[in-house]
Amino acid sequence: MQISSSKPLLSSNTQEKVLTGDRATGPLHLGHYVGSLKQRVELQHRFDQTILVADMQGLTDNGHNPQKVASNILNVVADYLAIGIDPSKTTICLQSAIPALAELTMYYANLVSIARLERNPTVKSEINSKDFGRAIPAGFLTYPISQAADITAFRATLIPVGDDQLPMLEQTNEIVRKLNSIAQDEVLLECKPLLSNVSRLPSVDGKGKMSKSMGNTIMLGSSAQDISKAVKAMYTDPLHLNVNDAGRVEGNVFFTYLDAFHPDIEYVAKLKSHYQKGGLGDGKTKAILEECLQELLAPIRERRALLLSDKAQLVSILKVGTEQAREESDAVLRRVKAAFGLNLF
Amino acid sequence: MQISSSKPLLSSNTQEKVLTGDRATGPLHLGHYVGSLKQRVELQHRFDQTILVADMQGLTDNGHNPQKVASNILNVVADYLAIGIDPSKTTICLQSAIPALAELTMYYANLVSIARLERNPTVKSEINSKDFGRAIPAGFLTYPISQAADITAFRATLIPVGDDQLPMLEQTNEIVRKLNSIAQDEVLLECKPLLSNVSRLPSVDGKGKMSKSMGNTIMLGSSAQDISKAVKAMYTDPLHLNVNDAGRVEGNVFFTYLDAFHPDIEYVAKLKSHYQKGGLGDGKTKAILEECLQELLAPIRERRALLLSDKAQLVSILKVGTEQAREESDAVLRRVKAAFGLNLF
Repeated sequence: MQISSSKPLLSSNTQEKVLTGDRATGPLHLGHYVGSLKQRVELQHRFDQTILVADMQGLTDNGHNPQKVASNILNVVADYLAIGIDPSKTTICLQSAIPALAELTMYYANLVSIARLERNPTVKSEINSKDFGRAIPAGFLTYPISQAADITAFRATLIPVGDDQLPMLEQTNEIVRKLNSIAQDEVLLECKPLLSNVSRLPSVDGKGKMSKSMGNTIMLGSSAQDISKAVKAMYTDPLHLNVNDAGRVEGNVFFTYLDAFHPDIEYVAKLKSHYQKGGLGDGKTKAILEECLQELLAPIRERRALLLSDKAQLVSILKVGTEQAREESDAVLRRVKAAFGLNLF
Repeated sequence: MQISSSKPLLSSNTQEKVLTGDRATGPLHLGHYVGSLKQRVELQHRFDQTILVADMQGLTDNGHNPQKVASNILNVVADYLAIGIDPSKTTICLQSAIPALAELTMYYANLVSIARLERNPTVKSEINSKDFGRAIPAGFLTYPISQAADITAFRATLIPVGDDQLPMLEQTNEIVRKLNSIAQDEVLLECKPLLSNVSRLPSVDGKGKMSKSMGNTIMLGSSAQDISKAVKAMYTDPLHLNVNDAGRVEGNVFFTYLDAFHPDIEYVAKLKSHYQKGGLGDGKTKAILEECLQELLAPIRERRALLLSDKAQLVSILKVGTEQAREESDAVLRRVKAAFGLNLF
């Protein structure tokens, strides 16, 4: 099976600049693939696209465990290349190696109140899902400011996000408007969301988000055995005990995965109908899903392993992208500083 | 009158590195001179000294008015040079032109909780004295982190401060210990205070701190007329109505200034005694103080004006110091990043 390339989401528009990124806290998984990575392969043919390996953001809740972030940077780059991100079409760059991002964050931090950050629904829900207690790191509460720096530093105008991330873009645009108003000039560009038409892929156990630490996900580099094990453990319909029972498709993780990954939509529709009527066993359908995932992931796993066997090449690709990103972001920083009169030298 | 050079506060110790700085939000005044600047002229002969023109910190409560900061950078540099800071002995550098400071701030922000920042007594009292309400800028609440970046980036170990600033140094040392513990290496150095033996100079009206915006101070560049006016308006003893009345010396701003600025301690002691007994009029004593301040400030004002007439030279001096500071701080940043494993390139 080839990595399927769905129809373009948008008509070609080289004026728009796309920015995405991933916290470098672990190798990427099928949730990333469906929710974002696959779309980026598409987008790189239509837009000027930058992908940020967000190691600094990964540190905002791993400040005491930087090795977790550092050790995953090249994994993430290998994931990108393995699924088809082409460094000649997409700028892949490393956040910690782009000083202008930290500098812009410092300027923007003076334009955003602590109260405003505490009201941010995305940050609120993330704080609730973590074990910070009263000890929320300053870097974590303020990371929407750093994200605004990322977006504006690359003059990105189109940000592929899930709707849970919309408050982050609103925060960015507030900063853009404030800064432009202070500068009395359009120094920064506002951005808009590119909402994904793919719903979030549930975890294998159906209990929520995929998370490597929860052991409920399939990584892009998973072995054939791990894929097989994950599919066998997949949550289906707990009331579908006998082959001839009518089964439920809604909330059945298995069919959500078939929808997301099987290339033949009609065939999946037929399977669903059969399952609902009764007469289709979980064993058989799981075999179909497993085959489909094995076909998808085998070449990715192979490319990924090959890429990781030559780390110097990965470093070199990341370095070239980062140098390009530094140039772009330094230019934006110079404009912001000039607008503030801070351009003595 | 010469700018008097008091006895060294410490014996010579070239191992210690001294860092001081000033928010570039206005030209400096007599309060700065007595509280810090005069001591720096002394310290530069004994230590490796860096002075930071803290424009970024000035922006933390002037985010919407960057011009106030930008327009004062060269004023502050001229103040330094006019009072005798020697750029061949002291590194004078500009905070916003040293990217490592922003980058270190980002790393340290992950090691400090919002709750810890909110407990900082110095920040608490500064927040109370400002009109932020609920709208404390993120950059203001977090500026102790940025200050820790300043101190550690230059490997400064000795920080001349008033005792109200001790919590800032404690915050810095907490970050140093945390980072060194994560890195399992002495990447950063702890600092210690160099407590000034000069009490804070009160405002001319005796109502509190000097502040240019309150119009109750004497700037280093004040004209002879302004100095005369300020001394005449100076708060003395409100019950000392007739020359023959006994006067109070305690809380008498006039005598605090004589103590701070008159070179002849014995003469000032005699004046105090005469004033307390009665028979010494405010007019006469004010004339003595005015003469002393005019003598102190005339050459400073003259040098200051001369320096400001050649801005290119000021920029050049600041640039040389900043380049030196960039080298030092880049080296510290590299060590921090390497300790975190973030040194791919």
